[in-house]
Amino acid sequence: MKERIKSIVEINDNKVSSSFGFFIQALILLSVITFSIETIPNLKPRTRIVLKVIEWFSVIVFSIEYILRIYVADSKPKFVFSFFGIIDLLAILPFYLSFGVDLRSLRALRFLRLFRILKLVRYNRAMNHFTRAIKSAKEEILLFLFITLILIYFSAVGIYYFENQAQPEHFTSIFDSLWWAIITLTTVGYGDVYPITVGGKVFTFFILMIGLGIVAIPTGIISSALTKSVDKKQDE
Amino acid sequence: MKERIKSIVEINDNKVSSSFGFFIQALILLSVITFSIETIPNLKPRTRIVLKVIEWFSVIVFSIEYILRIYVADSKPKFVFSFFGIIDLLAILPFYLSFGVDLRSLRALRFLRLFRILKLVRYNRAMNHFTRAIKSAKEEILLFLFITLILIYFSAVGIYYFENQAQPEHFTSIFDSLWWAIITLTTVGYGDVYPITVGGKVFTFFILMIGLGIVAIPTGIISSALTKSVDKKQDE
Amino acid sequence: MKERIKSIVEINDNKVSSSFGFFIQALILLSVITFSIETIPNLKPRTRIVLKVIEWFSVIVFSIEYILRIYVADSKPKFVFSFFGIIDLLAILPFYLSFGVDLRSLRALRFLRLFRILKLVRYNRAMNHFTRAIKSAKEEILLFLFITLILIYFSAVGIYYFENQAQPEHFTSIFDSLWWAIITLTTVGYGDVYPITVGGKVFTFFILMIGLGIVAIPTGIISSALTKSVDKKQDE
Amino acid sequence: MKERIKSIVEINDNKVSSSFGFFIQALILLSVITFSIETIPNLKPRTRIVLKVIEWFSVIVFSIEYILRIYVADSKPKFVFSFFGIIDLLAILPFYLSFGVDLRSLRALRFLRLFRILKLVRYNRAMNHFTRAIKSAKEEILLFLFITLILIYFSAVGIYYFENQAQPEHFTSIFDSLWWAIITLTTVGYGDVYPITVGGKVFTFFILMIGLGIVAIPTGIISSALTKSVDKKQDE
Repeated sequence: MKERIKSIVEINDNKVSSSFGFFIQALILLSVITFSIETIPNLKPRTRIVLKVIEWFSVIVFSIEYILRIYVADSKPKFVFSFFGIIDLLAILPFYLSFGVDLRSLRALRFLRLFRILKLVRYNRAMNHFTRAIKSAKEEILLFLFITLILIYFSAVGIYYFENQAQPEHFTSIFDSLWWAIITLTTVGYGDVYPITVGGKVFTFFILMIGLGIVAIPTGIISSALTKSVDKKQDE
Repeated sequence: MKERIKSIVEINDNKVSSSFGFFIQALILLSVITFSIETIPNLKPRTRIVLKVIEWFSVIVFSIEYILRIYVADSKPKFVFSFFGIIDLLAILPFYLSFGVDLRSLRALRFLRLFRILKLVRYNRAMNHFTRAIKSAKEEILLFLFITLILIYFSAVGIYYFENQAQPEHFTSIFDSLWWAIITLTTVGYGDVYPITVGGKVFTFFILMIGLGIVAIPTGIISSALTKSVDKKQDE
Repeated sequence: MKERIKSIVEINDNKVSSSFGFFIQALILLSVITFSIETIPNLKPRTRIVLKVIEWFSVIVFSIEYILRIYVADSKPKFVFSFFGIIDLLAILPFYLSFGVDLRSLRALRFLRLFRILKLVRYNRAMNHFTRAIKSAKEEILLFLFITLILIYFSAVGIYYFENQAQPEHFTSIFDSLWWAIITLTTVGYGDVYPITVGGKVFTFFILMIGLGIVAIPTGIISSALTKSVDKKQDE
Repeated sequence: MKERIKSIVEINDNKVSSSFGFFIQALILLSVITFSIETIPNLKPRTRIVLKVIEWFSVIVFSIEYILRIYVADSKPKFVFSFFGIIDLLAILPFYLSFGVDLRSLRALRFLRLFRILKLVRYNRAMNHFTRAIKSAKEEILLFLFITLILIYFSAVGIYYFENQAQPEHFTSIFDSLWWAIITLTTVGYGDVYPITVGGKVFTFFILMIGLGIVAIPTGIISSALTKSVDKKQDE
């Protein structure tokens, strides 16, 4: 009996197991969509009831799945405290907690439900590939995050110096300038804050010339690590 | 006779065939330009007549081309249901349908004419190169589309949580937040919606630091797959 | 005598020749700066005179340089019709033409002076490196420019279909939509035009997911071609 | 005694030395944060005092560190005029100078304090890796900065020609157009200036098609140089 359940829940090489996996994935997606719809203001009472029914149904299924997974695990504590064990718990916990706690704090709890989406990752084996690429280039990625942070901070200080007096409402302190720095160096450029003084514009010019190259480098590193990791797999 | 037509329509290694291909390509471009001009409001009646004449002429030529291609095809049904067979039909169908159907639905039909532009692809052999690169990196590209979608969804939920109360008109529901997430993570940054709370800005900072690398990775993968595919061709 | 001048003007391996090259480069930069300053409205008459003197001086020097280059050339007609021969002529021609022609057309002529900046390229040997990389990846770059153009056109037609009725002032015709398409797919995102309908936003989402990868690919190709070209140089 | 201090200050392979390094790094971060907080307007007097105390404390520690480093250096003048020697001095100098000089010039001096952040680099060995990659691709990076500058200048002149008459307030001179060129070619796109004439829009289209590839190339070069440099390290 236990072996039978295990083959359905954990192993993905037979028909029943694949169907089970597909069913859970579909339920996660449905659950995420209902979560999104719930945030729309002024829903009809009838829609609310439908959403609630789906939520009850998915929590019941996820709870059964969680219990089954504990039941079939070789080492029960190991599963409970594993990454996916915690994710599985977090996916259902908010629902049960919402009975016991004050209604005020319910709002923040709702967002915990989102952890369900991480359950999808379990079914995606290709993810390992990406994780390995990240690990192999860990040192470079950290270095560039560090350089990027220093660069952003320098840009913020510089623009504060140039623009503070001309636009005290937008560049009030270095913290406000940091917002400008991140939006500019990532080239998002909303246009809510931008330099208007000649000094600030020249400074932005130099920061962009130096900065763009640096901010975009981690992507290049991950891409090349990923390509190499694929090559290795093909060589084996 | 059939062989003669076939050598003109299908094979591109003689002078007549090249001229035929070039003529069809030029007509597709002309057809696309007239399609664009038709959308300009308040055209002069005379311009409308010229556009109509060009449209009639190109549909007649494309129809003859379609009939010839069916005529010379080794297997007629195979051609009709092939990718280019369907494209060739879609390129002329809207015109003939517009006689039979109600004028109201004409508007949407007009856009079907655009399928003509896909006919251009037939004449571009280098495209195979690109298709092969995409296929060889299919798994990685799908993985990253999946990760990107999860990331966009998480960003939307997060910004909804931070900005919903401060800007209920822009971050009304998670669906509205999704618009912000896609425009920000692709660094388009129109500036129609952006965070104004401190929490929302700090959240945007982290999302951009993590997200930019991930959203840009598929490009890196395609580029490297393309480069490898060129290398292989040169090695042969 | 001719050999002496030739060693100064054409060959860059002795001291006098290097100084000559440096002097010409400095004069080009000075000439570009004065050109920029001239566009500032309401200049003082005194500034105008200084600018005019610099302009006269640089034209005289460039004219002498042009004559010397013709004088020392092995084949005079070959030099005159070579790339740099034409650039050298275009750098001085606008000045001489401005005496003979009507003052109205002077404005456009002024811009011809900019060709002087291309003279800088002569002194940059590393440029060959880049030219070779571009040539080796010519086929791929052309293919992607072609795909990009089709993609931009498709995006323009799609957004026109979704937004024309909601924002007839911004998406008046496909030509106006093309402006939106190029600004969005290159992620510039000025924010002067953006979709407001749900359909338009969903369409933008898909276009960005597909399009960003494609628009950014030529850069990847050039970079990798450039890297390979450097490797080859090091192998030799 | 001198050897003992040297092992703490300079070498990072024992416990005391690691703790010392970590302490200095923490103090630099604290010092940067207090620097940022100081720029917030209308701080409470009590907060100001706390900030001042932290500033005094960190300057004293950095001064002691500087003296110790001179003391243990094999060649004292060599250290004082080395990169890190100058950085260490600049990190404390503004504080001492602020006693001697007029209060007016204090504001600019405050920013010199930021040099402290560069002290962080000393503790980051991975930086060498990046420096080597930059050096190996120096020639290409310089070439592309040069091409990018020419491209930006050409774009500015072109847009000035197209937009000057339509928007004299935004495209007043080539210097104003340069601002548009840098913000557009880096795809930041604040939306404070953008072309409105048909000519200007078509010009922007071509500039973006050519320019994006070129501006983004240095990033590709650095990434590939970095990847190669990692490969070499792994081969050894």
